[in-house]
Amino acid sequence: MTGCLKEYQELVAALQVDGLALVPGPNFTRALGHSFMSHERPFVVVIPANGAPAAIVPNLELGSWQLVGFEGAVFDWRDQDGYGQAFADLARHLPLKRIAVEGQVMRVFVHHAFKQALPELEILDAEREISGLRMIKTAADIAAMEAAITISERALHAVLRQVEIGQTEKQIEAALIQALFAEGADDLAFSPIVAAGDNSARPHAHARSDYQIQDGDALLFDFGARKNGFCADITRTVFVGSVSEEGRAVYETVLRANQAGLDITRAGVTAHEIDDAVTGVLEASPFADRIKTKTGHGLGREVHEAPYVMRGNHQVLPAGTVYTNEPGLYALDKFGVRIEDDILITEEGYRSLTQFPKELMIVG
Amino acid sequence: MTGCLKEYQELVAALQVDGLALVPGPNFTRALGHSFMSHERPFVVVIPANGAPAAIVPNLELGSWQLVGFEGAVFDWRDQDGYGQAFADLARHLPLKRIAVEGQVMRVFVHHAFKQALPELEILDAEREISGLRMIKTAADIAAMEAAITISERALHAVLRQVEIGQTEKQIEAALIQALFAEGADDLAFSPIVAAGDNSARPHAHARSDYQIQDGDALLFDFGARKNGFCADITRTVFVGSVSEEGRAVYETVLRANQAGLDITRAGVTAHEIDDAVTGVLEASPFADRIKTKTGHGLGREVHEAPYVMRGNHQVLPAGTVYTNEPGLYALDKFGVRIEDDILITEEGYRSLTQFPKELMIVG
Repeated sequence: MTGCLKEYQELVAALQVDGLALVPGPNFTRALGHSFMSHERPFVVVIPANGAPAAIVPNLELGSWQLVGFEGAVFDWRDQDGYGQAFADLARHLPLKRIAVEGQVMRVFVHHAFKQALPELEILDAEREISGLRMIKTAADIAAMEAAITISERALHAVLRQVEIGQTEKQIEAALIQALFAEGADDLAFSPIVAAGDNSARPHAHARSDYQIQDGDALLFDFGARKNGFCADITRTVFVGSVSEEGRAVYETVLRANQAGLDITRAGVTAHEIDDAVTGVLEASPFADRIKTKTGHGLGREVHEAPYVMRGNHQVLPAGTVYTNEPGLYALDKFGVRIEDDILITEEGYRSLTQFPKELMIVG
Repeated sequence: MTGCLKEYQELVAALQVDGLALVPGPNFTRALGHSFMSHERPFVVVIPANGAPAAIVPNLELGSWQLVGFEGAVFDWRDQDGYGQAFADLARHLPLKRIAVEGQVMRVFVHHAFKQALPELEILDAEREISGLRMIKTAADIAAMEAAITISERALHAVLRQVEIGQTEKQIEAALIQALFAEGADDLAFSPIVAAGDNSARPHAHARSDYQIQDGDALLFDFGARKNGFCADITRTVFVGSVSEEGRAVYETVLRANQAGLDITRAGVTAHEIDDAVTGVLEASPFADRIKTKTGHGLGREVHEAPYVMRGNHQVLPAGTVYTNEPGLYALDKFGVRIEDDILITEEGYRSLTQFPKELMIVG
C-alpha cells in the first residue's frame, strides 16, 4: 500500500461507515501504487476505520499482487470455484453493516456479491468523497499531466500540418492516434473526437469515413494522451481552407467565454462561479441557443473526475485542482466550436497546463 | 435501433422481468448500432417485453442520439439539473417491478438511481443471459475480428524483427502499440502485456522500464487490436537469444495443451470439456504446479465475454462461438509461457482465426 491508507481510513470515520471498498480503477491504483485489470473477476480492497485492510483477489493475480506489499488478509479465489466463498470469508473477517463504495467505478455484479454474502449490508455511493481525495494534485501528478499534455500538443501540431481538404475525419483521427504514440503516449486518455462540418456540433461525435472535409469546414479535435497514469484532455477547433463570418464570430465568442473563466480562476473560487462566468458570456451572445454543455470537469487519473464545473455546484476549489475549461457552441445544422484548456488552480490565480495557441487558425 | 430489438424483448419475457436496462457498452452498441460514452452521466435504454423502449439520455448527447432513429420515449437531463427527474419520469412511464441488467457493465450509481426512483424495484443481474446473445457471431462480426487479428499479427511480426537483448519491456511495448496503429487498429483491445523473464510469469504483468532483456529470457506478448468494434486477443511467447532445456520443455507442454483443446473443438462441445482437455495435458506434465489460469474466454465486442472456458461450465458451445485457447505455465521465480489462439467453432470442428506460427521461436 502507498502512504495514503490513512486518508482513506479517515474518510471511513467521516462517512460513519464500517469500511470503504475500492475496486480496480483510479482510486485503487492510487491507494495501492499498482494498477490491475478486473474484467469479469471481482477484485476488491476493503479498508476499515481501524486495523488492517482486507482484499478479495483473483488467484491468477497473486503474482502481481505480491508487488503491492499488502499488509492485511487476502481471500483469493479461482475461476472454476467462483467468488462466493471469498466474499463470505471477507464478511466473516470484517464486521460490515454499512460500506462506502465508488458508485461510478464499482459494477453491479460486485454490489450483488456483497449483498449475497451480507443481505443486510447498506452500500452507500460515496463516489464524490472517495474520488474527491484525488482532487488536489501532487507535484508528481501535475508533472505526469504536463507530460501527457506536451505529447498531445506535439501530436496536434504534427497533424495540423498534414490536414487537407478532401481528407476524411477517420483519416485524420488515425494520423492523430499514430502521432500520439510516436510522441510517447502510454495510451489514449479516451477515444479521440475528430469531427468536421455538422459533425463538429455533436459534443461526443464519432469520426466518419464517408465524409470528406470541405473548404470552410470547422474541424474539431478533442483528445488526449495518457502518460504515467494521468490524462490530457484538450480541444481545439480550426477551420479548413477558409472561415465564414459566422464561424469567426462563434469562435471569438467561445474564446471570450474561455477567457472569462480563466479571469476569475484562483484558489477559493467555486465551480458554480467559473461556469457562471463562462456560460454568462455565451448567453449574452447572439448564439445563446447553441449552448449544450457545462464548462468542464476535473482532470487527473480519469478524464472526467471531480470537480464538475457547472452552475449549482458550490464546491470551493482549492489550489492544486486541475479542471477543464471547455466552453462550446453547437448548431446541428451548421457546425460546432469548442476550446478546451487544462487549468491548474493556484493561490494567485491559475496556470494553463495546455499551451497550444488559441487564436483562430485556418489550416489546409 | 437495429433489428435485434426483438431478441431483447424475448429475453425480457424469458427472464420474467418487466424490462431490460442496457447502459453504454457492448450490448448497448449492438442494440442501437451506435456507441456512446457514459463517464459520470447515466445513459440507459429500457426495453419492456411489449411496446416501445424508453431511454434516459444526457442532454448533450441528443445530437448524436438523433442518429440512432430511436422509436420510444426519451427522458433527457442536463448536468446542472441532475438525473433524478429523468429516472422518476421513466418510472412513471414504464411500470417496473423487476428489471434485468448487465451486472458487469452497469455501475452502482445507475443501480442506485433506479432504486431512488423505485425503492421496491428488484434489480436482477442477467449479465450471462444478456451478453449471451452476443455469443454466436455473425459473418460481419467474424470479418471484423479477422481484420483485428490480421492487424495484430502484422504488428507482432514487425516488432519481433526489432527485438534485441538489452531492450526494456517498455520499449518493446511502445513499438508494438505504434505498429498496431500503423497497421490500422481503431484502438487497443486492451493494454498490451509485454513481459520478459520472471515478469512473464505474471498473467497480467505490466511492462517494466527498469529491466533489460537478457539472453535466454522468455518474452511474452499478450495483446490485440480493436477494429470496427471487435477485438483480437493473441498471445505468443518467444525466447530471446537462446532457450534453456526447461524453457523448451515448458513451451512444448503448453503447445500440446493448446493443441489438445483444438482437437476436441467442434459444435456441441462444452466449455468444461475443452478446459478439461487443455488443463489435463498441463496436469499430466512435470509442470503441473505452474498452472494459474483456465483455458480461456469468449471474444468479440469485449476482450473477455461469455463463454468462460473452464471446468464446471457445462455450457454447450454452438457453431459461431469464438473463444480464446490460452493455456499457460507460470513459475514466479523463473518464467512463464502462454500460447493463445482465437478459435471459431464450426459444425465440423474449428477455424483458427489467429494464424501466427506457434513453433518455438528464438529472436534477437
